[in-house]
Amino acid sequence: APGEVWLVGAGPGDPGLLTRRAASVLAAADLVLHDALPGRAVLRLVRPGATLLAVGKRKGHAPLSQAEIHAKLIEGARAGLRVVRLKGGDPFLFGRGGEEAAALAEAGIPWRVVPGVTAGLAAPAAAGIPVTHRGTARAVTFVTGHDAAGNLPDSIDWAALGRAGGTITAFMALTKLDEIALRLLAAGRPASTPVAVVAQASLPGQAVLRTTLGACTLDARRAGLPMPALVVIGEVAALAATLLPPAEPGPRRRQSA
Amino acid sequence: APGEVWLVGAGPGDPGLLTRRAASVLAAADLVLHDALPGRAVLRLVRPGATLLAVGKRKGHAPLSQAEIHAKLIEGARAGLRVVRLKGGDPFLFGRGGEEAAALAEAGIPWRVVPGVTAGLAAPAAAGIPVTHRGTARAVTFVTGHDAAGNLPDSIDWAALGRAGGTITAFMALTKLDEIALRLLAAGRPASTPVAVVAQASLPGQAVLRTTLGACTLDARRAGLPMPALVVIGEVAALAATLLPPAEPGPRRRQSA
Repeated sequence: APGEVWLVGAGPGDPGLLTRRAASVLAAADLVLHDALPGRAVLRLVRPGATLLAVGKRKGHAPLSQAEIHAKLIEGARAGLRVVRLKGGDPFLFGRGGEEAAALAEAGIPWRVVPGVTAGLAAPAAAGIPVTHRGTARAVTFVTGHDAAGNLPDSIDWAALGRAGGTITAFMALTKLDEIALRLLAAGRPASTPVAVVAQASLPGQAVLRTTLGACTLDARRAGLPMPALVVIGEVAALAATLLPPAEPGPRRRQSA
Repeated sequence: APGEVWLVGAGPGDPGLLTRRAASVLAAADLVLHDALPGRAVLRLVRPGATLLAVGKRKGHAPLSQAEIHAKLIEGARAGLRVVRLKGGDPFLFGRGGEEAAALAEAGIPWRVVPGVTAGLAAPAAAGIPVTHRGTARAVTFVTGHDAAGNLPDSIDWAALGRAGGTITAFMALTKLDEIALRLLAAGRPASTPVAVVAQASLPGQAVLRTTLGACTLDARRAGLPMPALVVIGEVAALAATLLPPAEPGPRRRQSA
């Protein structure tokens, strides 16, 4: 019988934020292709005896190309294996899950998807920030700071986005923060617009920088935050809230600036 | 010792899409205030002996006001109980979790948040739709069709949103679909823009309507889809993909139109 491929979201890193289905799929897997983001604590949930293959792209270092990942998934499924493609966050939000699903469908391989908790929600929450809030923001846009070539995606009209009026949550944006801030300032967002940068959300190295649109580029450079980091732009970033650390083993919080 | 309040996301309804932490918090709860959305399958995970209180707002019927919910949470925590506020999806995305956190913080009650899988990702995924896709959409905006008074939120500049260029995913938007479509058409989005309406995502009654921005109002009316429904607007809604039903007990898929 031909195998199948599960595209599985691992959530932001804390194994408590994995879904119950993701955990049961990992516990039954034969072959797991995983990114750099799902850390050791998540990988411990994989069935002992399963093959683990790190395919994650770290900066300037790509063990496997996207085409090679597709080939491995297809090959594993054709060998009758229960294959899991494990991704940080949600597989269909900046996860290239759509490309993998398309490649699998084209090859006639059955695939399924297990959505995950996105860092776009988990990172702000860990900093006590609701991405929407009555009277403050009735929309949130998740946007990436990187296109395939590592530039700000030019399919995004940043000026229009700046005027739309909701919270903006930017993924992989730390190195492009200057450009993003300039475009939003040019679109009329005030320099005083609150900004929060949440690094390594839900992980032991979690750090939060609270700043403004006008000051964020310099502040982020000074803070030297670890990656990955998520940038929250909008009035909600200033909502003061007292958040306790999670009760289960996990992140201790560090406050920068 | 004073108790504490956990603001917990239940995900889209399928109990497999609850996080592991949410499940362990429910298994230890003394008092659970839940919305209408987390269904029976999720509520079965609550500790036997815990008090369940349905506070959910169904159309035109609100057992408890928001202020009354705050009072119950505070009262429970002051009585030393482990209180869970269980919400569909994620507590900080259109969940009024921010208001509850603010009320708790003001009352000096410790609170924590457990982010959840949002229907904004799970519903499109269940229909085989990645909300972002290289070359197609590099951003997604989650927006609500309802403000506090039941109108389209006027803090959203729909024209700007229409021009920003990403996927638009509208919550609680079925009754406002005509107005949303008109505004986006007026902003220059073509009538041929693909639209998918996903009703009761991840639940046994799941149904998917595939239509266009020009035709969606009439098509949705004809299809008579059940609530809750999520509307996905943008090129990604047309990405053809073969999706299998989840292996665990759960949704059978019905295709409308």
